[in-house]
Amino acid sequence: MSKKYVYLFHEGSKEMREILGGKGANLAEMTRVGLPVPPGFTISTTACNDYYSNGKTLTESMITQVNQALDSLEKLTGKRLGDMDNPLLVSVRSGSVISMPGMMDTVLNLGLNDDTVKGLVELTQNPRFAYDSYRRFIQMFSDVVLGIEHYLFEQEIDHLKEKKGFSEDIELSADDWKKIVEKYKKIVLNKTKQPFPQDPKLQLEMAIRAVFDSWNNQRAIVYRKINKIPDHLGTAVNIQMMVFGNMGEDSGTGVAFTRNPSTGEASLYGEYLMNAQGEDVVAGIRTPKPINNLKEINPEVFKQFVEIAKQLEQHYKDMQDIEFTIEKGKLYLLQTRTGKRTAQAAVKIAVDLVHEGIIDKETAILRVDPEQLEQLLHRQIDTSATTKVIAKGLPASPGAATGKIVFDADKAEQQNLAGEQVILVRPETTPEDIHGINAAQGILTTRGGMTSHAAVVARGMGKACITGCESLKIDLKKEEIWINGEFTLKAGDVISIDGSTGKVMLGEVLLIDPELSDEFKELLTWADQIKKIEVRANADNPDDAKRSREFGAKGIGLCRTEHMFMDSKRIPIVQKMILAEDIEERREALAKLLPMQQSDFRGILKEMAGLPVTIRLLDPPLHEFLPNIEELLVDITRGMYEDKQENDLSEKEKLLRKVRNLSEFNPMLGHRGCRLGITFPEIYAMQAEAIFNATVELKRENIEVEPEIMIPLVGHVNELKLMKELIIRVADKVKAETNTNFDFTIGTMIEVPRAALTADEIAEHADFFSFGTNDLTQTTFGFSRDDAEGKFLQYYLDHKVLSDNPFVTLDQNGVGQLVKIGTKLGRNTKPDLKIGICGEHGGEKRSIEFVYKTGLNYVSCSPYRVPLARLAAAQATIKNNS
Amino acid sequence: MSKKYVYLFHEGSKEMREILGGKGANLAEMTRVGLPVPPGFTISTTACNDYYSNGKTLTESMITQVNQALDSLEKLTGKRLGDMDNPLLVSVRSGSVISMPGMMDTVLNLGLNDDTVKGLVELTQNPRFAYDSYRRFIQMFSDVVLGIEHYLFEQEIDHLKEKKGFSEDIELSADDWKKIVEKYKKIVLNKTKQPFPQDPKLQLEMAIRAVFDSWNNQRAIVYRKINKIPDHLGTAVNIQMMVFGNMGEDSGTGVAFTRNPSTGEASLYGEYLMNAQGEDVVAGIRTPKPINNLKEINPEVFKQFVEIAKQLEQHYKDMQDIEFTIEKGKLYLLQTRTGKRTAQAAVKIAVDLVHEGIIDKETAILRVDPEQLEQLLHRQIDTSATTKVIAKGLPASPGAATGKIVFDADKAEQQNLAGEQVILVRPETTPEDIHGINAAQGILTTRGGMTSHAAVVARGMGKACITGCESLKIDLKKEEIWINGEFTLKAGDVISIDGSTGKVMLGEVLLIDPELSDEFKELLTWADQIKKIEVRANADNPDDAKRSREFGAKGIGLCRTEHMFMDSKRIPIVQKMILAEDIEERREALAKLLPMQQSDFRGILKEMAGLPVTIRLLDPPLHEFLPNIEELLVDITRGMYEDKQENDLSEKEKLLRKVRNLSEFNPMLGHRGCRLGITFPEIYAMQAEAIFNATVELKRENIEVEPEIMIPLVGHVNELKLMKELIIRVADKVKAETNTNFDFTIGTMIEVPRAALTADEIAEHADFFSFGTNDLTQTTFGFSRDDAEGKFLQYYLDHKVLSDNPFVTLDQNGVGQLVKIGTKLGRNTKPDLKIGICGEHGGEKRSIEFVYKTGLNYVSCSPYRVPLARLAAAQATIKNNS
Repeated sequence: MSKKYVYLFHEGSKEMREILGGKGANLAEMTRVGLPVPPGFTISTTACNDYYSNGKTLTESMITQVNQALDSLEKLTGKRLGDMDNPLLVSVRSGSVISMPGMMDTVLNLGLNDDTVKGLVELTQNPRFAYDSYRRFIQMFSDVVLGIEHYLFEQEIDHLKEKKGFSEDIELSADDWKKIVEKYKKIVLNKTKQPFPQDPKLQLEMAIRAVFDSWNNQRAIVYRKINKIPDHLGTAVNIQMMVFGNMGEDSGTGVAFTRNPSTGEASLYGEYLMNAQGEDVVAGIRTPKPINNLKEINPEVFKQFVEIAKQLEQHYKDMQDIEFTIEKGKLYLLQTRTGKRTAQAAVKIAVDLVHEGIIDKETAILRVDPEQLEQLLHRQIDTSATTKVIAKGLPASPGAATGKIVFDADKAEQQNLAGEQVILVRPETTPEDIHGINAAQGILTTRGGMTSHAAVVARGMGKACITGCESLKIDLKKEEIWINGEFTLKAGDVISIDGSTGKVMLGEVLLIDPELSDEFKELLTWADQIKKIEVRANADNPDDAKRSREFGAKGIGLCRTEHMFMDSKRIPIVQKMILAEDIEERREALAKLLPMQQSDFRGILKEMAGLPVTIRLLDPPLHEFLPNIEELLVDITRGMYEDKQENDLSEKEKLLRKVRNLSEFNPMLGHRGCRLGITFPEIYAMQAEAIFNATVELKRENIEVEPEIMIPLVGHVNELKLMKELIIRVADKVKAETNTNFDFTIGTMIEVPRAALTADEIAEHADFFSFGTNDLTQTTFGFSRDDAEGKFLQYYLDHKVLSDNPFVTLDQNGVGQLVKIGTKLGRNTKPDLKIGICGEHGGEKRSIEFVYKTGLNYVSCSPYRVPLARLAAAQATIKNNS
Repeated sequence: MSKKYVYLFHEGSKEMREILGGKGANLAEMTRVGLPVPPGFTISTTACNDYYSNGKTLTESMITQVNQALDSLEKLTGKRLGDMDNPLLVSVRSGSVISMPGMMDTVLNLGLNDDTVKGLVELTQNPRFAYDSYRRFIQMFSDVVLGIEHYLFEQEIDHLKEKKGFSEDIELSADDWKKIVEKYKKIVLNKTKQPFPQDPKLQLEMAIRAVFDSWNNQRAIVYRKINKIPDHLGTAVNIQMMVFGNMGEDSGTGVAFTRNPSTGEASLYGEYLMNAQGEDVVAGIRTPKPINNLKEINPEVFKQFVEIAKQLEQHYKDMQDIEFTIEKGKLYLLQTRTGKRTAQAAVKIAVDLVHEGIIDKETAILRVDPEQLEQLLHRQIDTSATTKVIAKGLPASPGAATGKIVFDADKAEQQNLAGEQVILVRPETTPEDIHGINAAQGILTTRGGMTSHAAVVARGMGKACITGCESLKIDLKKEEIWINGEFTLKAGDVISIDGSTGKVMLGEVLLIDPELSDEFKELLTWADQIKKIEVRANADNPDDAKRSREFGAKGIGLCRTEHMFMDSKRIPIVQKMILAEDIEERREALAKLLPMQQSDFRGILKEMAGLPVTIRLLDPPLHEFLPNIEELLVDITRGMYEDKQENDLSEKEKLLRKVRNLSEFNPMLGHRGCRLGITFPEIYAMQAEAIFNATVELKRENIEVEPEIMIPLVGHVNELKLMKELIIRVADKVKAETNTNFDFTIGTMIEVPRAALTADEIAEHADFFSFGTNDLTQTTFGFSRDDAEGKFLQYYLDHKVLSDNPFVTLDQNGVGQLVKIGTKLGRNTKPDLKIGICGEHGGEKRSIEFVYKTGLNYVSCSPYRVPLARLAAAQATIKNNS
């Protein structure tokens, strides 16, 4: 015999999800354990795929097997399809391996025709119900199978109601419905040039084909794309005896979760409607009642349902989402599946199930999606409130914020001091805007990507930020924003931004504060016990360090020193340092920066007492600290017309020349990282001295600190060697001057391909490696993130040129190769070399799993992602140890 | 016994160069074959290295061995060091493994003191000679060994001459020299607080130490750095019996080459002076006479010298540079070494020696340095003429040019049409300057690196170009150039530029046309017979293609299509294409470009009939074809003050917005290469159609063509897959429309690390790979070449952070790893995959050798480097097959 395509419910089980789809497998499982499920059978996903590979044809074998299953079903129910006396009516529903709710098609009441409807009248003694069911069937079949638009049918009902002066469907009589059936059949004849199919077997065949076809309807394709569901899975088709919740007041239908899907609370949560079919609940015509009310209406059925719900949860070991129908006082289960839930509920349910002895800790850990946790860690928009989205940019820094629009940093500061909440809106930001960013609730820029200045600073500060919101046009002079020529917003208008989605909203939205529930903390404690990879945080100031520690970071993996340079009080000194004509002038400026940096480092090291702190020496190109060329140019050109002081102008021109001299064609690949340290050793020497002075100070206060100095952008061993020599010289000097000994280590970031390829040479001089996978991704792909995300990356993702954004999920095939090569070569030289990763991938679950499998020691991510990374690290450990 | 440090001349041979240094090995060799060499011995380079590792000490063992060798020398000559009656006088000379002419120290006449000088008087009966020799010794010894400045001694001679009213040294008598000796000794006593050392053995020891020390004097260190000579080689010391060319009119000294070192002509070339010491020839006080004159003065000695010269050339199988002295009619040889020569001479001598049966073809090929050949392939500056260098920039495109300064492209074109030669001087160039670059003799820019627009275009056109000449300040408004505040140059002033050295010169310089001599052609024919790797050219137009073919290219390895877009007539259409509001508008512009591209391809394919032509589809980011943002900004700002038409201004603002929209933070890593082809498939489709149309046209004319279509910047296999599908669709369309079949292949550039790392996947869809090592070097190092070369790369090279410029010589450790990985993975998938390299490394000898060893099929380089690459390819083959 050929392939098996069709399975009766009692032939399947929940393990057969791949073949039967989620719904089919669960119907089979419930049947298997003896729950009251209307009988039926499932046509497999294999059939769907074969249907497509046979040019959308149901093969002979499929039809034969369906007919055999139908025979069995008829024997089981004692009803027959098309039998006038005792007609079998069935539902035909899709059911894919991964749930795609509402995406594919369903036909109910199949089997009705001009004859069987009469049988139904006889059987139920309810002609109104029978004709209403028939017209529903025609309407649904026409829509789903024949492709006739829904409104054509709806307007017939409206006409009739109008004619009769009715306002509700319920007022229509059996005869009215009978008339409507006739009208419906005419519509079908008119539209398809064929009468409405009266042969139930033909109806069934057509419905099966329609469900298979719906696998590739537009909304299903889009849904799969968004949810990354592979196209090749296919859908199963479930054919099941109809039961009716609309057979009178002793009938009904409902949906319930075994626990609260919003809060996780361990109590039944759901609603039902008496004398109704499932679609009525969905349509929202009548308001359903809370599930607990059922206790009073039908205590027997309610008790049965509560027990079944409990049984199902025990059986599936997870919270279930159950559909049921009561037909003339008898309870039927139509579906059970694992219920969707909020992050908060996910955490609580997983932890509660452990306490209830239903699952173990490992299972609980695997139950919670780390990505989902991010919602819990930032101020968030109350999604229950309605919002008017006016534009969408890049989600640059998660969290939400509401405030008045301000267009410059000074005003942001002033208004903030005056107690107002503001959103700083700029084409892009520069170091001179830092005080404004600090003062604002959130930042919105029309240019720049996910690594733009605004984005990096905002993430560092944990502030909501949207960048690259190109549909907004800012007129700084008029202090206005234009949106698609539709709105104009002015300074002072209130907007809200959601940095997790990139949405800009008009007016104020409700925000909810983040909180780490007790269950969340407990779950993370279990994660820490299990995980075999350390989690550190990227933090640049004492506040962030403190937060990191609270969130469970076991050290700082990346402390960027440039943000300390960007403080508004320091930037003039930094600029003096950069524009210095000679080394003396530069040393003078550096001497002023030294005590400032020293106090920064002191603060951070103190917060992290007892834990390692990896401090990266200055990394960005120096022109990032200087004024913008274009603004200077415009100022100068203006000045020539406005008769400015000759002096002012020539000063500006001088400045322009210098800024131009420092400007670069491709700053990402330019004079930055250790290239600065090598050409201007005095800068790195100052930073090292500040670190060591702070170390000595704290040591004298008996505070244990572990500074790890990290040299950025090393591509050749000689770069590291030179910088290491420099730092050791500074350390020796500080030790001698203070007569104090201290420990420290020196390592490097591996962030250009050459470093990974020559990691054996580099390891000779490194105490640790930290993969900077942001830059490594940029250089390995040859993508500038700022440019790619605004220009072509979305296109690549939409068209599946790339399956994932490599800046979000580590590209294991390409960039990952370099991580593996670098790790292998580094450990060839030093078997115990400590290796971590500090790119943004350090907080992403799939990347964390890769990093764990590659044998690295730790990941480092932004403070707010630390809990998420702890969980993901535990998951990686569990998955790869079983 | 301990290590052997000292070798008598007859103990050595020319094979012992590593130990004896070049001079010592050759003196030994000449002694061994019975030539008249004054006897002596050599202290080895090993001794030098041990001297340094012993804290600059001559070990006991060294001193013992020197004394033993001295004994032998004394026995051999019958003279004794310090013997009043028959004193042995010696020279002490350095001699390193690789010649470092004039870099280290020499002491002559050692052994003279207050006693032995009297013996010399007796022996020679020439007191004037004896005291002159003594004072020369003191002077040289004091300079070299005691570190007393030379002028102190010179001024004593001047004083005496003045006092006596003499003008020439020759007028001074024996007594005068005797007095000067006394004065000299006082200077030494005064300066060193020690009398001049009278013990000849002490003199010798001090001189040996001085020679060892001179290995690390400043000029030797710098010379080694420039010439890449390893520091660890050390120098040998040669101690040799003095012979005197200044013993009267029957004595003399001279230098001769066995062939003309400038032209390669096979005749003795040199000069001599009678009654003189070597230093007199060098000092240029008297004018030496041509060597052939010696035939009349002393036919006997001349005949002997001619025979010896011939014998040495036969013995060494190469042109020799010989130093000789005649002492009282007897010929002595003091040195022979392989003579330095011009590129022209190198080629002629190598080929002539093959014809003379002295060397074989392989040896001839190995004799010529490919790098040196570049001189022969571009118009060059007559180095015999004196020039005033006023600035130095980056040598961006070799060749030399002279012309009047013009500051804009239109004027360049006008003046060129009027028959004038011009140099286009710009801060940088843009596509809109192309007609000016085309019209100019050479291009000089103050900004930009070796891959700047100006540099790339100029190299493509084979025009001289200097970029990044930052010491020039251009005032475009005043049409002036400021140089260090010293000169001002105006439009119309004549300058010359040397694109091979980066030198900018005032006024006109004499230029010499390149020519391929018959010998050069013959040598290259031999190279072609031997080499096992193909040489192609990078050429973008029919002229370059023709030149490449003349220079022996076996195909085009890189035809860049963007230069075709930059033609001044096309750029408006290209801009229209880029700024199109919708796909229709874009298609309209593309339709206009299609016939233009088609005729470009037709011309190139026709020139290369029968050979493969690799055409790379559009690569640069689109904003490269648009006006400059800064200029637009200034125009707009000006416009606001100058009351320009409202319309004009808003047009400009619109343009600015669009240009800004397309502008990028890191264009090198931005929206370019196949990323353009994927997001704007219509552009690549047009290009493919143009190629196929041209192919069909030529095919119909019975011209065989081999188009190879290359997709740039592929990083993920899906990119290539998509573009391949597109091109095949276009090909099928053209085949159907023209009813003509044709062959073509589709391949990709491997120029981002990810492509190399996933080459196995990519090879599934590629007919060939071409490593674009320019971009691959940029991404592997994380260096933007434009920025690196202007900002930190020179520092890296000067401070030996990097030993070579990776943009000139392929970085085998890093980038080369990726070339190896890419080749291995690609051939794993397709064992016969054709693989080449088309970066600038394709024309550099060390890179070519690496490429050959890695197993690639071809290199491709600029047309002018094709001969050089052919030779280097043959050398690589010979070196790695023996």
